[in-house]
This record gives sequence, C-alpha cells and structure tokens, in this order.
Amino acid sequence: MPVVGMVGGGQLARMTHQAAIALGQSLRVLSERSDDSAALVAPGVSLGSHLDLAALREFAAGCDVVTFDHEHVPGEHIRALADAGHTVLPGADALLFAQNKRAMRERLTELGVPCPRWAPVERGAGVKAFARGKTVVVKAVTGGYDGRGVWMVGPDDPLPDTELIVEERVTLVRELAAVVARSPFGQVAAYPVVETVQRDGICVEVLAPAPHLSEERATAAQELAIRLATELGVVGLLAVELFETPDGLLVNELAMRPHNSGHWTIEGSRTSQFEQHLRAVLDYPLGDTALTAPVVVMANVLGGEPGGISIDERLHHLFAAEPGVKVHLYGKQVRPGRKIGHVTALGDDLEKTRARAARAARWLSEGREA
Amino acid sequence: MPVVGMVGGGQLARMTHQAAIALGQSLRVLSERSDDSAALVAPGVSLGSHLDLAALREFAAGCDVVTFDHEHVPGEHIRALADAGHTVLPGADALLFAQNKRAMRERLTELGVPCPRWAPVERGAGVKAFARGKTVVVKAVTGGYDGRGVWMVGPDDPLPDTELIVEERVTLVRELAAVVARSPFGQVAAYPVVETVQRDGICVEVLAPAPHLSEERATAAQELAIRLATELGVVGLLAVELFETPDGLLVNELAMRPHNSGHWTIEGSRTSQFEQHLRAVLDYPLGDTALTAPVVVMANVLGGEPGGISIDERLHHLFAAEPGVKVHLYGKQVRPGRKIGHVTALGDDLEKTRARAARAARWLSEGREA
Repeated sequence: MPVVGMVGGGQLARMTHQAAIALGQSLRVLSERSDDSAALVAPGVSLGSHLDLAALREFAAGCDVVTFDHEHVPGEHIRALADAGHTVLPGADALLFAQNKRAMRERLTELGVPCPRWAPVERGAGVKAFARGKTVVVKAVTGGYDGRGVWMVGPDDPLPDTELIVEERVTLVRELAAVVARSPFGQVAAYPVVETVQRDGICVEVLAPAPHLSEERATAAQELAIRLATELGVVGLLAVELFETPDGLLVNELAMRPHNSGHWTIEGSRTSQFEQHLRAVLDYPLGDTALTAPVVVMANVLGGEPGGISIDERLHHLFAAEPGVKVHLYGKQVRPGRKIGHVTALGDDLEKTRARAARAARWLSEGREA
Repeated sequence: MPVVGMVGGGQLARMTHQAAIALGQSLRVLSERSDDSAALVAPGVSLGSHLDLAALREFAAGCDVVTFDHEHVPGEHIRALADAGHTVLPGADALLFAQNKRAMRERLTELGVPCPRWAPVERGAGVKAFARGKTVVVKAVTGGYDGRGVWMVGPDDPLPDTELIVEERVTLVRELAAVVARSPFGQVAAYPVVETVQRDGICVEVLAPAPHLSEERATAAQELAIRLATELGVVGLLAVELFETPDGLLVNELAMRPHNSGHWTIEGSRTSQFEQHLRAVLDYPLGDTALTAPVVVMANVLGGEPGGISIDERLHHLFAAEPGVKVHLYGKQVRPGRKIGHVTALGDDLEKTRARAARAARWLSEGREA
C-alpha cells in the first residue's frame, strides 16, 4: 500500500490518521512536538519543523505522497520537494492561493469570481482612500487563521505592521462553506453546502445542510467550488468559505486540506472529509458525499476557564445526558478559546439537533449546563 | 484522562484505537509482534506475550484499565494483576466463561439458559454413548476460534487429543448474535440482534438487523444477553452467538470483547462497538445503539490465493464501482482464508445492500468480480 505523510501534527492529522487506519494505512506525520494532537495517536511520528527543508526532505523520502495539516509550509520548500521527485499534493502553485490572500484575491478577480471589494495595501497607503471614512476589514496577506490576522479598522485606527490587503465590510446574511475534493485524475466530489457560525472570528458551529438555502444557490456554491478546484489545480480537499449577502455569494477564504467546516462529515456523510482527502491524494475514486441524516450539527469545543471538573468527569455528564452525541477530543492542553475538540449531533429537527450539539459542547467546554 | 490498555494487537485493538482517538485517548497495546494489526497504527506499543506475567504486570502498570483483544490470557495471570491492584475488565471470573467452553456450558445449564444438548468428555469416554450413532460436534474446551477447535465427528472418527466437550448437531434455521455492553455501574446497552452467516466455521457476513426476526424473538435474544452479562458479571462487551432452531434460541458461544458480529456498528449504529467497549470499561454512560440505516450488511474480506493485482489496485476498482461502501483493512499479511478486513454497506433494501457488500468483499479478497 502507498504511504501518505502529512506535514503538521494538529487535529486534522489526528483525524486523518483515524481514516487512514480504515484504508489499511498508518498516516505518517511530521510534527513539531511529541505532544501535538496527531503525534499522541500515530506511530513513527517524525519530529521536525515544517519550515526546515532538511526535515521536510527526510520526511518525504519515506512517503509516496506528502500532504498538509495546515498551509504554513513555504512554497519554495514544496517546490524543492517536487523538484526532487516527491509527490506533494496540493502542489505549491495551487496551495499559494490558500497561503497568500493577495494572490488569492488577484487570481479570483482574474477568474471573475465574486469577492468583497478589495485592494492591496502598499506600506499602509491607500486604506483611507479605500475606506472613505467607513470601517474596513484589514487582513494579513499570510499567516492568519481562526480570526488571527484579521482586523476591523476604523478611520482613526492604526494599521498592523505587516503585509496587508483591505476589504469592504460586507453586509452578511450568514456564512456558508462549500467543501469539494479533487483527485489528480480530475474527479471532483462536492459535499452538501453548510452554514458556518463564527464567534470572535472562530467557527463555533456548522449546520449541514445549510438551512433554508435554495437549491439554486446551493448548486451555485458547489459549482463555484468545483470550478475553483479545477481552475486552481487543487488536489485533495478545497474548502471555499463564502459570505451569503443579499446580492449573492462572495468568496471569503480558501483552504486546501480537511477543514473545520467539514468535521460534521465523520458521522454525517457517507464518506468523511478525512477519508476523502486521502482518497484524493492517492488518486482513488472519491467517496459518496451523501448525508446520513436530515440534519447534522457540529459544534466546536473551545477551552474554558481554568479549574472546574476534569474533562473526564465532563464526559461522564455529557454521555449521561446525550447518549447519541458523538465526541471528538483532540488530546490538546486546554487554553481558553483554543479548539480542543468538537461534537456532532444528528437528527431530524434543526432546532432540537442544534440545541443538543450546543449543550454538549458547552458541557465539555465549561463543565456545566449554561 | 484515564488510560486504557488492551492485551493483544489484532484488528479488534486496531479498531478500538480508532475509537479511543475520538475520546481523547490513545489506546495502549500489548502486542506480540511489531507488525501486528494494531501495532502498525498505535504509538507506544509494548511488545510482549499475553502468556508472560511479567510483561502483563509491566503493561498494566501504565494503564488505568486493562482489557482484551482476545480471550487467551490465562485466568491466573488476570487474577494476579487484579490482586496487585490493577483494574482488569472483564475480570477473570467472568472471562472464564468465554475461555472455557465446559465451564460456560456448566454455568449456563445451572442458569437454565437453553443450550444444545452437551456433555463433558473425560479422556474420550462417553462420546459414543452421547452420539448414539449420529454425527456430533466435538469442541476443544479451550483455545478455539474461527472454526478452529470445533470438529464434526461421525461414529467411526477418531477424537482430537485435547480436553473436549461433545454437543448435539443442532438443526439450524440460522445463526444470530446478540451484542450487549455492561458497565461496572451495571448499566447495560443492547445492540439490535443480527444474523451471522458462516462458511467453514468463519463468519463471512452479518446482516443488521436480523431479517424477518420477530420482535418477540429479538427481544428474547436481547434479554438473554442482558441477563447473561449481569449474571456472569461481564464488564465491557458481551457477544452471545445464538442458534435459531425451529424450537427457539440456543446459546452457541460467548465472547467478551469487540466481536466480528459487531463490526457493522462502526457505520451502522450511532455508537460503534469499539467506542461502547471503551465506554463500558471506563464506566462512562453507554452510547445510543440505534441503527443509522434500515439495512446494514458487513462482509468479511478473507485473504485470497496468492498473486493477482495488489490490494491497492483492488481498492481502486472497488471505490470506482461502489463509492458508498465502507472499507476497513487490517494491515495484515494476506494468507488464504485469513480475515484481512471487512466492508460495510448501508441501504434500504436487504438484497441490494447484501449484493453490494458481497461484491465489494469479493473484489478485495480475489481482485475480480466473481
């Protein structure tokens, strides 16, 4: 069997390892620390930095395919691995558009894909002219995630000292995500479009399928994601984060890996996004993306304040109250606001299913009901 | 979080590790060989024999709970661990009835549980009198599994040279299995009763729920399994293998661990048997055992004849033909007839779902359609 290696030892690698086991594999992981989420559960973990080309070369030598848990591997390192004959998926040319927000906006604009109005920021210049006195969204071109690297900037606020783009603040109905997978052969499989709910820039809840989304708009979102996967040459998963506005859909961000907006697929779809990513990078035919229940709700478990009962005790209470909610804990040290796990509830009724997931996540996060 | 250790590195430990990851754990495994099924996918595997008390003691010292992938750990070793203060579940007194067929038949007879007519065999004596000229079933008291240790013995056949019991050859309608879990607290959860299909003494197919089983008989089977789990003091899973006969149900065998008749639960039940076993031995409240689809069919993948296309190529064909069938490969070397994996199909229609599972298993086993 071919060997898949994942650079980065976070929860995405951890859950990909679970999927790899079913396929007769054991995911190889390049992890920074021995207590990283995936390093705790996979054998033969390589310790090393994703910024260290020598470590990447050594890791790639033991793999048939190298893929990623995050988008922080420098493009020149990915190119160096490819030049040395390693199969790295997604490739550097595609991954650029998930690593660099300016490159992404430029390319999407070329492709005529609807985005928020935006502009590059050259040494702080141009923001005032762009903003015309309004509050705008300023984003670091590289390195942001989970709300980091994104700022709301009013007319008199100073600008962060990093390479930036500026975007209009969009009037949102809500946020959606369209996740697709693409194989080297060119097969594409699309998951149902979901609604994502953010708090302080962090995804807290995903509703699948997106409630009350018209079939026309759902299809448009899937077609957009499929088009982007194809045009950008993505292999593996592509998550397209979308703004739903009164006037239609705008692309917010791209990710090219298993994504928080797809965690619901572990129980909620016939093929989990983690298995799908493996199938894609191995060029296997892709799996069925059908829902397994009418309503699937994923809620993230964020680290709560220190103290209180242990996670183990919290699990006891949760399992007693909700025998059907599925729990995924990442083995990470608890820090306030850090994603330490997620829960998934399946059901027929949106509000009831949502309440069950929220209650379960709160129990694990805070060790109490409300 | 508490640490669960499993003695034995087979596919049951492998799939239990997948479930442990979701619960924020990493299963510890005591494995005989570094290329055992579970040892390939779990970190920090202890290498050692389940027959070696020193190895067991060292392993148990790193675990909060010790449980089993098979029933071959000697009872006196389990007692020694318990005497040293380790939590071992199921305990030696319960596990005896899964290890020793004579003890099991004696206890079940005491409890008034319906079994095939049987008798102990003292140095070969008594079989002819028991058989009265008919073919009978002779079973090794200890050590049998997957058809090994069971013989059909005609009037003139010699007896195997080991400790035996003899049983009547039952007129079967079919075989069923009732899987339940029991926690130390005493909570019990029962899975839907399934039909198991054997070939040459090896389970090849499991149909969930058992087709056309009357609700009355299904409930009787679940109640019997719950009663046995309670009376025998089982903690963890108990699989009760049953003969359905024209006159009712008879107990064939007991197993106290995740069981082949429960593999369908990974996708087919809200809580997999592997998660349920962990919840039980950790004394967590047990999970929902509801079916996730009207029909679930599991088919074992047995090693085929040497040669032909690789397992990797077989996966390509299978995934192209059946994008919704779920595959579980155990990472084991292929030997003819050896269980190397299983597949699960979910659907609405029994015959169609069964055909999909059988076709998928055949592809993986033989690398061709039929």
